[in-house]
Amino acid sequence: MKQLAAAHQLVTAVLKGDRRAIARAITLAENGTRETRKTVSLLYPHTGKAQIIGITGPGGVGKSTLVEKLVKELRKRGKTVGVVAVDPTSPFSGGAFLGDRIRMQDLSTDAGVFIRSMATRNNPGGLARATKDAVHILDASGKDVIIVETAGAGQSEVDVIKIAQTIIVILAPGFGDEIQAIKAGIMEIGDIFVVNKADRENADRAVIDIQAMLELSNDEGKWRPAIIKTTATTGEGTAQLLKEIEKHKDHLAKGEAELRQKNIVETELTEAIKQKFTEHLMGELRKSGRMEELVSRVLARDIDPVGAAEELFTEQTGKSGSKAE
Amino acid sequence: MKQLAAAHQLVTAVLKGDRRAIARAITLAENGTRETRKTVSLLYPHTGKAQIIGITGPGGVGKSTLVEKLVKELRKRGKTVGVVAVDPTSPFSGGAFLGDRIRMQDLSTDAGVFIRSMATRNNPGGLARATKDAVHILDASGKDVIIVETAGAGQSEVDVIKIAQTIIVILAPGFGDEIQAIKAGIMEIGDIFVVNKADRENADRAVIDIQAMLELSNDEGKWRPAIIKTTATTGEGTAQLLKEIEKHKDHLAKGEAELRQKNIVETELTEAIKQKFTEHLMGELRKSGRMEELVSRVLARDIDPVGAAEELFTEQTGKSGSKAE
Repeated sequence: MKQLAAAHQLVTAVLKGDRRAIARAITLAENGTRETRKTVSLLYPHTGKAQIIGITGPGGVGKSTLVEKLVKELRKRGKTVGVVAVDPTSPFSGGAFLGDRIRMQDLSTDAGVFIRSMATRNNPGGLARATKDAVHILDASGKDVIIVETAGAGQSEVDVIKIAQTIIVILAPGFGDEIQAIKAGIMEIGDIFVVNKADRENADRAVIDIQAMLELSNDEGKWRPAIIKTTATTGEGTAQLLKEIEKHKDHLAKGEAELRQKNIVETELTEAIKQKFTEHLMGELRKSGRMEELVSRVLARDIDPVGAAEELFTEQTGKSGSKAE
Repeated sequence: MKQLAAAHQLVTAVLKGDRRAIARAITLAENGTRETRKTVSLLYPHTGKAQIIGITGPGGVGKSTLVEKLVKELRKRGKTVGVVAVDPTSPFSGGAFLGDRIRMQDLSTDAGVFIRSMATRNNPGGLARATKDAVHILDASGKDVIIVETAGAGQSEVDVIKIAQTIIVILAPGFGDEIQAIKAGIMEIGDIFVVNKADRENADRAVIDIQAMLELSNDEGKWRPAIIKTTATTGEGTAQLLKEIEKHKDHLAKGEAELRQKNIVETELTEAIKQKFTEHLMGELRKSGRMEELVSRVLARDIDPVGAAEELFTEQTGKSGSKAE
C-alpha cells in the first residue's frame, strides 16, 4: 500500500517534469523491480506526445558531438529535449574522452534538457527494456523531443533504436569497413544518413558509397533517405539535418505514422511477452532439476540441444515439437 | 520415409568428410527446416572432438587476414580446419575488398580446409542457430579445428562466439573508441587478446590499454589472458598466437574444460528452449487474434507493453504476472 502511494507520488512528480523524479524513475527502470512496472504503467497513458529520434553508428564517427549540436539547435527553437544514451563509447555513458564529457556539462545545467546514460549490464534484454522505459518516462514528463543514441550494428542495438520514429545513421569518411558492417545491420532501418567529419577530403566518396547502397534497396513511392553532410565539431550541417528530420516527420504524418507506431508497439509487446514467459519457464525448469537433467543428456550427446527443446515442448504441451514443412 | 532416408544418406556422407555433403548440410541448417533438425540430431553424437576457436573484434582490424594466416599455420601442422564466418565485413561473407576475397581462394582449393560464410538474415536468432549447427556439422565431419569468426560487440555476436572453447579478441592500434565499446561487451569473454597491425607506431600503447583493462578484472588462480602482437599481412606473430591457443587449451584441460563445456551446452539449450516455446506462443497469439487485440490496447495507451504481457501471463498460467521483490 505504502509502495503504491510512493509510486503515485513519483508519477505525479514525473508528469510535472520534476528532474529528480525523472532521474529516480529511470533508476527504478534500470533495476527492473515491481515498483518500476507500477510507475511505468501509470505513466504510459501520458506517453505518445514526444518526437523520438534515434541516432546510431559505429564508434568514432562523432555521434555524441552531433547529438550535442542537435540538442543545442533544438533548444534554440524552444523545444525541451531528453537524451537517452545506450552507447558505451558515448561521453554521456562516460566512455569517451574527457573533453567530450566537459562539453556535455553545459547542456546538463539547462533545465530544458535531461540527459541520461543507461548502465551497460550483463543482461542485454534488461538494458533494452530499461532504455524503452526511460523513453516512456521522458515522454510522459513532457519533453518535446527524445533522442536515443546507440552504438554499433549489433542486433540488440538495432532492437533498441527501433523505438524511434526517425532513425539517423551516422558515418564518417574512411569508414569503408564500417559501412560494410552497417549494410548488414542498420542500413535498412536508416531514415536519414549523415556523413560526419565532412571537412575530410573523402567525404564525397562516402556520400557516393551510401547512395550506391541505397539505390539497391529503393522502392517507388516510399521515403527516400537523404544523405546529409555535417561537421559536428563546428555545428555545420546541423540545421539542415534538423530540417530533414522535420521533413521525415511530415512524410510520416501523411499516413505511414500509424503503421510505424503499430510496428513499434508490436515489437515492444512481443519482446515483453517473450521475456515474461521464458523467464518463468526457465525458472521452473531450473527449480525442478529438469534443466540440469537435460544439460547432462546433451553433454553425454544422447540428444542435441534443439532435439531436447522439442522433446520438452511435446511433453509440456502434448504437441509435436517439430516444425512441419 | 523418403526424407528420413535422405537425411541418413547425407549424415553418412558428412561423417566421411564429404565436402558437398557438408555444404548441403549447412545450407539446410541455414534454411532451418525439419530435415535440418533430423540431420543435426543424427550428427550430434559424433560431435565434441574438434577444437573450437572463436575470433571476434571490430571491423577493419584485420580479423580475416589473421584467420587466413592461422588456417595456413594450422595446415602446416597437419590439422584439418573448418571456418564459419558470421562477419558481414569478412571476405568470406563477401563483405570486404576484392583483394581479400582472392587471397582466400587458395585456401578453399585445399581439401583439408572448409570455409563457409553464413548468410546474414533478418532473423538474428535464426542466424545464431544456423551458425551453431554449422559448427556441429563441421565437428562431426572430422575437422580438427573449427574457427568461428564474428564481428562487432553486439549481443548476438557475443552469444554466437560463446560456442568456442578459446575466444580471441582482436584489436588494432588507434582503435581507442572500439576498445571502449569492447569493454562493455566482449572484454570479459576474451581468453586471448591480439593487437594486430603491430607494425604501427602506437601498437604498444594499445597493449598497455588492454592490460590496464584486464588488471581490473583479474582473478587469482584464473586464466590470465595473454596479449599477443601480430602483423597479419606478413604473418608475424601467428605462430605465437597458435602457441598461446594451445596453452589455453592445456589450461582448460586441467579442470575448467568440463565447466566450460557445461556452460556452452546450457546456453545453447536455453536458447533452443526459449525459441521453441516463444515461437509457438507467438504463433498462437497471432492466430487467435489475441496479439492484434493487445496491440490495439497498447496503441490506445490503455495498458503498457509489459503490463499487457503480465496480464496475458496471469490469464494463461493462473499465476501472478508481477515479479515479487
